[in-house]
Amino acid sequence: MPDDVISYLEQNFPADLEAVREFLRQPSISYTGEGIAETAELVRQMIADLGGAARVIPTAGHPLVYGRLDEGAERTLLYYSMYDVMPADEPGWSAPPFAAEIRDLPFYGPSIIARGAVNTKGPTAAFFRALRGYKAVRGKLPVNLIFVVEGEEEMGSRQFNRFVPAHKELFADAEAVLFPFFEQDEQLQAFLTLGTKGILYFELKARGGDWGGPRSRGIHGCFAGWVANPAWRLVQALSTMVGPDDRILVEGLADGAVPIPAAERQLMQEQADLYGTQSFLDAYDIKRFKWPGEGVDVWEKLFAEPTLNIDGIWGGYTGPETKTLLPHEATVKMDVRMVPNMEPDHVVAAIRNHLDRHGFADIEMTVLNKYYWSKVPLEAPVTQAMLRTYEQLGHRPQVQPINPGSAPYWVFERVLGIPYITGGLGHGSRQHSSDEYCTVQGILDFEKSMVLFLENYPQVAAAAAGSR
Amino acid sequence: MPDDVISYLEQNFPADLEAVREFLRQPSISYTGEGIAETAELVRQMIADLGGAARVIPTAGHPLVYGRLDEGAERTLLYYSMYDVMPADEPGWSAPPFAAEIRDLPFYGPSIIARGAVNTKGPTAAFFRALRGYKAVRGKLPVNLIFVVEGEEEMGSRQFNRFVPAHKELFADAEAVLFPFFEQDEQLQAFLTLGTKGILYFELKARGGDWGGPRSRGIHGCFAGWVANPAWRLVQALSTMVGPDDRILVEGLADGAVPIPAAERQLMQEQADLYGTQSFLDAYDIKRFKWPGEGVDVWEKLFAEPTLNIDGIWGGYTGPETKTLLPHEATVKMDVRMVPNMEPDHVVAAIRNHLDRHGFADIEMTVLNKYYWSKVPLEAPVTQAMLRTYEQLGHRPQVQPINPGSAPYWVFERVLGIPYITGGLGHGSRQHSSDEYCTVQGILDFEKSMVLFLENYPQVAAAAAGSR
Repeated sequence: MPDDVISYLEQNFPADLEAVREFLRQPSISYTGEGIAETAELVRQMIADLGGAARVIPTAGHPLVYGRLDEGAERTLLYYSMYDVMPADEPGWSAPPFAAEIRDLPFYGPSIIARGAVNTKGPTAAFFRALRGYKAVRGKLPVNLIFVVEGEEEMGSRQFNRFVPAHKELFADAEAVLFPFFEQDEQLQAFLTLGTKGILYFELKARGGDWGGPRSRGIHGCFAGWVANPAWRLVQALSTMVGPDDRILVEGLADGAVPIPAAERQLMQEQADLYGTQSFLDAYDIKRFKWPGEGVDVWEKLFAEPTLNIDGIWGGYTGPETKTLLPHEATVKMDVRMVPNMEPDHVVAAIRNHLDRHGFADIEMTVLNKYYWSKVPLEAPVTQAMLRTYEQLGHRPQVQPINPGSAPYWVFERVLGIPYITGGLGHGSRQHSSDEYCTVQGILDFEKSMVLFLENYPQVAAAAAGSR
Repeated sequence: MPDDVISYLEQNFPADLEAVREFLRQPSISYTGEGIAETAELVRQMIADLGGAARVIPTAGHPLVYGRLDEGAERTLLYYSMYDVMPADEPGWSAPPFAAEIRDLPFYGPSIIARGAVNTKGPTAAFFRALRGYKAVRGKLPVNLIFVVEGEEEMGSRQFNRFVPAHKELFADAEAVLFPFFEQDEQLQAFLTLGTKGILYFELKARGGDWGGPRSRGIHGCFAGWVANPAWRLVQALSTMVGPDDRILVEGLADGAVPIPAAERQLMQEQADLYGTQSFLDAYDIKRFKWPGEGVDVWEKLFAEPTLNIDGIWGGYTGPETKTLLPHEATVKMDVRMVPNMEPDHVVAAIRNHLDRHGFADIEMTVLNKYYWSKVPLEAPVTQAMLRTYEQLGHRPQVQPINPGSAPYWVFERVLGIPYITGGLGHGSRQHSSDEYCTVQGILDFEKSMVLFLENYPQVAAAAAGSR
């Protein structure tokens, strides 16, 4: 245990906390571009302050920040993160989303309320403070670092996904990837995820055409006796895709899906006592799951099955009062979360075929984004180093076979051919919702876990190399 | 034929046209309140300019304009109209909606493009100019008039529907109601409608609750494997209400509906050659009707059956790009158009029962408006006087058993106990859409038909009284 570094982090924590809050006060909203340029520059500065060489790289979208910090170490890790956040325009914020105010939350104690507190500017700022602390005590980090911090994660990492394949040489000496994150859940249970689901995000649009319906504009609702309604058509099409029991009815959508590997399923079973789900329901204000079941079976629903979600739906008159209208189009935004070994192009084809076979060939499908799933081997040194870190800090992590969310980690696995790990102590929640938060205590715990991981990794990797 | 009056109208038409355009340039949008007070005052002034006594009557919503014009005549008609219009915020306007520019339209020739051109400020302004012309030539009108002009027709006539029952004495001497309107269709075919459908306008809202789903805010879309989605629930509920063949599946919804009276059906059959529907399809840019069939059968679909329309639907993320969200609620605005003798409260109960029986007791139903249907007897003097007017002006009107739209005419029939007629030559279209218009020629034709009707009515009424 690097006690000297940990003491330093504890003593200097007030300044670190203020630095994290300061970073959270800078908006950086993907969708509007607000604060994007300013925030990219702040990240570049954070790398430079550590003595690294960093630059802001323009792209067709929001810029990437790339940097290198050569510490003369034997091994090099790639630090990946993002500096953008979701919009904060939903109702229900009890504090301004970019004020980073500290509120005393029940159970969690003092916590920062801010957009980005957990996803992901809180961990990002805290990681740099941890590195700074380590260097202040020891002079040099135990690994070299390459940094890549993107600004479009919340819009599908479009620039990042193109940049890495086109510039593999910038990442050639990295042997694994670290994505630092607050990985303690609502009950402060630490967890470790061994992959991420893939995502296919698309729109379906029904509009008037040869089949009927008004083709160029909404018409008076009184003509519903004569004229078909694209909103009804979209409803009918959607109702063929998911049954009343919530099961996906799109034939072939789940083709290729494999069960959770036996070793991971075994690990989940052994950890069943850790797998509390009530805290999830409480945290998200949900009365019941959509499936019956208990324990590991419930978790398997989240990890092992694809989903077909409605993200948004709209059409016609959505204002106040009673405008009568027969709209000419209606649209739904949907996403499919894919488990190994589903492939997005196959899912697209399955949905298109389903619509066609059910008589909805006129409904237009537009793919807005797709990510492949990715998996991290349990035996990879980054995984084992993170497990050791948690254990050293007194946490028995819950190992999850996959993250039900999506992230562009397939780029590391499929393009760079290196494993990656998401990890860190710390707790925050309500990402993508109002009152996103992270706990103050969690920031310090996170910093400790990061410096410990950076020491553990070269040892675990060397042992693994030696045993081969 | 009052040739002197008609000559006067023709000679003075340029000034009348400018007066109509001037009135259309004054916005009067129900939903926003923009220009409502100003427009009510303009209407009051128009009555006063004829020598009538008029006042703007405040209500809990937009004011009503009420007036009386005593011409010392034997008979008194009630003039009903509205001074409010729909919003004009939809895309697709080729001229500013409140500029009342004149454009040369294919087939129709010079026409005014403006919100309200046909519905209903165009006819309203032209009616007052016709009265002015009549009085300029003859000194006095052949009937006394009571005026009531409301400002919330596009929001469901809520104030009007309360005001009339509470102030019956203000209408006691009216023996029938005239609602002047441009009643020539896209082929310039005149028509006469013998009633209006009723409307029930309501919202259905699915939100997270005991059944599942997030209860207080949208959550990250990745949890779709665990958490039910209110948007899917709304889709499932809607799909039980209307079949893929567009037939209404809500049991009991159409209870009470009676066929079109035999005499009216006979009239429709005789007029089958007048009943072109292609012009409707062309005008509204629609490729096909939702039902197969031809001639009178097609019209019967519009007149004799209730409809269940989706006016608008929304829920979740509806912005650009790919925000992943599992929304906590989804809402649909719907309307049922009721034919005689359906009753709105029965329809509400049928829908509620349907949802409950299909397992959707949690879906909330909010009634926003309801109108009863109304019918006008073919033999009523106002009907016969309007028929005679059209014939005298060389038009063989198409008689329609009911207007598929809705209007608060049940107030006349059920509260005041007097018949009403909607009528007038003239053509306009695209109401509630972009590029609403009325033809310039139609305004003059309308003025002529109105002065003729005012002469015809007392004669027809006297003959009917004598024959009793």
